[in-house]
Amino acid sequence: MKTLLLIGIGAGNPEHITVQAINALNRASVFFVLDKGQATEDLVRLRLEICARYICEPRYRVVQVSDPQRDSATPSYTQGVEDWHEQRADVFTRLIAEELADGECGAFLLWGEPGLYDSTLRILDRVRANGCTHFDYEVIPGISSVQALAARHRIPLNEIGQPIRITTGRRLVAEDLDNVVVMLDAHCAFEAFVGEDVDIYWGAYIGTVDEILIAGKLADVCEQIKTAREEARQRKGWIMDTYLLRRVWKP
Amino acid sequence: MKTLLLIGIGAGNPEHITVQAINALNRASVFFVLDKGQATEDLVRLRLEICARYICEPRYRVVQVSDPQRDSATPSYTQGVEDWHEQRADVFTRLIAEELADGECGAFLLWGEPGLYDSTLRILDRVRANGCTHFDYEVIPGISSVQALAARHRIPLNEIGQPIRITTGRRLVAEDLDNVVVMLDAHCAFEAFVGEDVDIYWGAYIGTVDEILIAGKLADVCEQIKTAREEARQRKGWIMDTYLLRRVWKP
Ligand SMILES: C[S@@+](CC[C@H](N)C(=O)[O-])C[C@H]1O[C@@H](n2cnc3c(N)ncnc32)[C@H](O)[C@@H]1O
Ligand SMILES: C[S@@+](CC[C@H](N)C(=O)[O-])C[C@H]1O[C@@H](n2cnc3c(N)ncnc32)[C@H](O)[C@@H]1O
Repeated sequence: MKTLLLIGIGAGNPEHITVQAINALNRASVFFVLDKGQATEDLVRLRLEICARYICEPRYRVVQVSDPQRDSATPSYTQGVEDWHEQRADVFTRLIAEELADGECGAFLLWGEPGLYDSTLRILDRVRANGCTHFDYEVIPGISSVQALAARHRIPLNEIGQPIRITTGRRLVAEDLDNVVVMLDAHCAFEAFVGEDVDIYWGAYIGTVDEILIAGKLADVCEQIKTAREEARQRKGWIMDTYLLRRVWKP
Repeated sequence: MKTLLLIGIGAGNPEHITVQAINALNRASVFFVLDKGQATEDLVRLRLEICARYICEPRYRVVQVSDPQRDSATPSYTQGVEDWHEQRADVFTRLIAEELADGECGAFLLWGEPGLYDSTLRILDRVRANGCTHFDYEVIPGISSVQALAARHRIPLNEIGQPIRITTGRRLVAEDLDNVVVMLDAHCAFEAFVGEDVDIYWGAYIGTVDEILIAGKLADVCEQIKTAREEARQRKGWIMDTYLLRRVWKP
């Protein structure tokens, strides 16, 4: 039997790592690092720093793999994601077969929380469905960017007794504005709601040395966020940002 | 200036604590433990165990405080919560005044993630609004029971590119059933939806030695969960459980 560990490492601050994750790091002898090209070079470096910082006996090896790119030319979004997951399942199957000896333990270091907008678990399901089943796996939770955002702004994620919604820039709609956390937003989806009476709590590169935090009435800070975001994106070549929108007075 | 640390300690597994939280524990000289009576005695003990396990120089003191109970006789739920928060704000104000010297650092150990269905942040806002402002505070995120649930069942929290909803037993509605995490449910709210084609991933005392996990089609495991839940609640005198409902085939 081979073992795979899916380790949540937090979303930027290396001190967000849990004791459970540190123990898992120390069980693994191989680390699989999926390189998604230029933009995520910094994130790969951060993962290697975490290994160096928290692993007691540095006798592990790192296998860097080029992650297949999603073909954005595929006409259907769903089919595009489908093909992409299948390609990634093939890559994973090969890694398990070729890079992991029987009895060995390999690890993926996953950004933030493994259950939140991360495809690794789904791809492992597919690997098993495709017949590669001679491995077991464990999931180790990690601090997500949503929690890092709330902590840095010192706000609760929910209003008293009310539900919480987490969504993507693509799916943000007016009905969400009572209280919603938005991730994966490349296009400042909040701008469409600048006429609404909502507060925004925005953060980029949260937990890292480049962290930027801006909060206020959306109408007041919308332009400031857009400018800060664009300036940072150009300077670093990539950006990751998350925000919470909350209606000030509810009907 | 006085400092308060709101430290997320994870939802049951002492190894869910982060390095940031351990460092924060070691900065505090006073720990405030809110005792909510019989039912949470075990949870107070777990907090003290965390202190004992992760604090290097045991020169801290523990201040145990009886948490005011919410008066469930108050006719309006909102007014009831309102009064209760005001009473708790008074308790906090007194703790800051009497138990914390200038320059000293006090800590609250908060269950799971401080931003998720926890009133401490809101009460501190109230303390400040009431004029007690000679303190600063920091929030340290922690692994929530939602993440612990997903990790133990090895499932993603969201479906591909779809929003996530977290809600309470009281507010669970049929429209949520596509994909929803339910907390704070004393009455098995899932039972109302046993006729729907949904999967349930249920967990009680997740991360502790008493952990129970049950998953399956809701119609198949509904009774099993209810029995296991009632049996455990009677044996231990209290229960905390969380679950995810996910529609099997979406229209
Ligand atoms: C593919 S998702 C992965 C989320 C991750 N699993 C988590 O728990 O945070 C990537 C998105 O997470 C958010 N994100 C991740 N790290 C962040 C950070 N340090 N600061 C702000 N946003 C971040 C951004 O919205 C980004 O588009
Ligand atoms: C007042 S809320 C606090 C939530 C906490 N801040 C968190 O992040 O998990 C209490 C609810 O959390 C859930 N919960 C907390 N710890 C749990 C555990 N170890 N297992 C299952 N559910 C848990 C239950 O739904 C419980 O009713």
